[in-house]
Amino acid sequence: MTESVLDYMTRLGRAAREASRVIGRASTAQKNRALQAAANALDAARAELTAANERDLAGGRANGLEPALLERLALTPERIDGMIVGLRQVAALPDPVGAIRDMSYRPSGIQVGKMRVPLGVIGIIYESRPNVTIDAASLCLKSGNATILRGGSEAIHSNRAIAACIQRGLAEAGLPAAVVQVVETTDRAAVGALITMPEYVDVIVPRGGRGLIERVSRDARVPVIKHLDGICHVYVSAHADLPKAQRIAFNAKTYRYGICGAMETLLVDQSVAKEFLPSMAAQFREKGVELRGCERTRAIIEAVAATEEDWHTEYLAPILSIRVVDGLDQAIEHINKYGSHHTDSIVSENLADTRRFVAEVDSSSVMINTPTCFADGFEYGLGAEIGISTDKLHARGPVGLEGLTCEKYIVVGDGQLRGQESV
Amino acid sequence: MTESVLDYMTRLGRAAREASRVIGRASTAQKNRALQAAANALDAARAELTAANERDLAGGRANGLEPALLERLALTPERIDGMIVGLRQVAALPDPVGAIRDMSYRPSGIQVGKMRVPLGVIGIIYESRPNVTIDAASLCLKSGNATILRGGSEAIHSNRAIAACIQRGLAEAGLPAAVVQVVETTDRAAVGALITMPEYVDVIVPRGGRGLIERVSRDARVPVIKHLDGICHVYVSAHADLPKAQRIAFNAKTYRYGICGAMETLLVDQSVAKEFLPSMAAQFREKGVELRGCERTRAIIEAVAATEEDWHTEYLAPILSIRVVDGLDQAIEHINKYGSHHTDSIVSENLADTRRFVAEVDSSSVMINTPTCFADGFEYGLGAEIGISTDKLHARGPVGLEGLTCEKYIVVGDGQLRGQESV
Repeated sequence: MTESVLDYMTRLGRAAREASRVIGRASTAQKNRALQAAANALDAARAELTAANERDLAGGRANGLEPALLERLALTPERIDGMIVGLRQVAALPDPVGAIRDMSYRPSGIQVGKMRVPLGVIGIIYESRPNVTIDAASLCLKSGNATILRGGSEAIHSNRAIAACIQRGLAEAGLPAAVVQVVETTDRAAVGALITMPEYVDVIVPRGGRGLIERVSRDARVPVIKHLDGICHVYVSAHADLPKAQRIAFNAKTYRYGICGAMETLLVDQSVAKEFLPSMAAQFREKGVELRGCERTRAIIEAVAATEEDWHTEYLAPILSIRVVDGLDQAIEHINKYGSHHTDSIVSENLADTRRFVAEVDSSSVMINTPTCFADGFEYGLGAEIGISTDKLHARGPVGLEGLTCEKYIVVGDGQLRGQESV
Repeated sequence: MTESVLDYMTRLGRAAREASRVIGRASTAQKNRALQAAANALDAARAELTAANERDLAGGRANGLEPALLERLALTPERIDGMIVGLRQVAALPDPVGAIRDMSYRPSGIQVGKMRVPLGVIGIIYESRPNVTIDAASLCLKSGNATILRGGSEAIHSNRAIAACIQRGLAEAGLPAAVVQVVETTDRAAVGALITMPEYVDVIVPRGGRGLIERVSRDARVPVIKHLDGICHVYVSAHADLPKAQRIAFNAKTYRYGICGAMETLLVDQSVAKEFLPSMAAQFREKGVELRGCERTRAIIEAVAATEEDWHTEYLAPILSIRVVDGLDQAIEHINKYGSHHTDSIVSENLADTRRFVAEVDSSSVMINTPTCFADGFEYGLGAEIGISTDKLHARGPVGLEGLTCEKYIVVGDGQLRGQESV
């Protein structure tokens, strides 16, 4: 290609903006037809998908990609099944676009309400998992947005093969190809261009490691829906049912170590610490979880001495820091200070405690008597999620179809004029 | 002051963050008490307010401030009345904080819903109108946020005097002084610091001219709720009731020329242009509104030839551009291309036309048979507004108390665990 990366990205951006007008007013039936047809296309293209993925895997091995990353890159038959099921699930979700709420008459005689509409063009920047291509494209399409997808260069052949299936789906539904575009160049300047075209791109969703997200946030001239750390806490309060607390804390840590909703720090009220900690610690030790504790914790159970650094750390591993706190106030203070405002839970049977915890903990999900690992779009009933936002503005917590839309005001009158008596 | 501007702003930021935790959990009654007490303090301090404002006005005159800016700077007795009434109105508004919606049981047995909570710390950057100090502080306080206010240097004495009254109100209600802080230095580096402290400031609201807003948006490392142009259109469709259309278009342009909801371009369907334009033009001409038209317009009425530039221009003045369009499609295309996505209206008695216009015009307010000048927080029933957002993310259109809050998820269980059968 002889055109510059900037020209190329501008061309994609302009095409996406055009296409966003078409997909924004497409009917629910038409969008669902495209999703179902893309699912059929994926099912029919298993051999091509596997062959394309083999090329990426071979390239990855040649470049010395770590085994964990190769594992993420692999498009197994089960993962292809997962993409197909995912497309059909998104087709089955209710369409958020066009919903009107809260229409009411004002004293002037006009009616005012809000209508849910697509954001426009969404740029997705992600790393090696090729199935993100389907997740992101399907959610954006269903919510009436055009998408520009920039996957990792190590997955470029897989992403192209997946994109070809999406293209077949769009064509079958009579929708323009530019509704979903995959950036074809692996030049890193493409990312720089994508995040600095507010005239063509309305929002960027980076999905990947902290380095990617921080870089995108720092350099973007377009709003970013981002997900940083998940330093999640469970607080076992003075009024906890202790066997229940132990089950919750164990599930919160061990359901999966690598998810952002995994508990990283356990806070235990000093009034129950002696009774609670020994059996809790035994269970974690049996599972192979390393315990790091504050001084008061280490007076009760064996644990590595926790440092200030530990309270700030998202381990994503079988390691847990434990702190004994004076009471509810110190628990809330600890969470708001050291946490990442992601997901935090109190275990308590006392209404006053839980009421305060819910009101005062400043996190995207605040929980009562529930393990933090429940923080997930499917568990919350969103149907699917494009990520979990740790931002406060726009979308906070798991982001589903609604998070990919916004609301505009609609005002209906019959000739009412401002500054004059109602007609 | 011997500390650097950065140190000073960091100190304000840290104090605001601390105070935000207190105001965030303050009761509705306590917040209302502070607002009412501040209103009483303003009423009791009329002499001080006038004296402080006199100093600013004298300084402004000495510095050759334009008469229009001096007029905006003046704190007349009526404007002081307005601030007092404004505070009492905000006290009377419903408190958005803590509202819980959509709690529902999930198959796992957990209940999931959303709770409305304050954003945290809001930085307001504004130009010469000192009454913005009260508007901004009262809305932020009622919505449970701490505020850092950076007014124009030409209004510093007025702003300090107003802030002193707010401080009396906060003290009477037992709330910390740092809930509302006015930046005391007129050093411009203070703005640079305020918009780059994401650890202390959650959102910036710039209120002022385009230059200010563009500068803040460009340099901010904190989300910005911003208001750019208001290039608003009225489209007189083929199915318009023409006398009604004339009343609406006249009101949209002439209610006030200087507001962002004022109509700047009138689009007229070719099928009604000959019948509609002559009497419409006569009415505008009588009012002294300069008309600039496309060729087809100028074939019907006398008007200056409109240039491409005109369609892009927010006049905020008695000037109107007029274009004859082929029909609904071209009208929507014109609005989405040349408009500023602020407020646009169709005049039509036809349901299919209005349904398409509402769905396809990509503006923060889309109207039917209503003048665009109705775009306003009071008219929409928000009680008060901190501005009109032309952003798509978070808040779109007039921003009231709700726009200064966000929602977090709340999850309530009774020991349910993930990945296991419900207990």
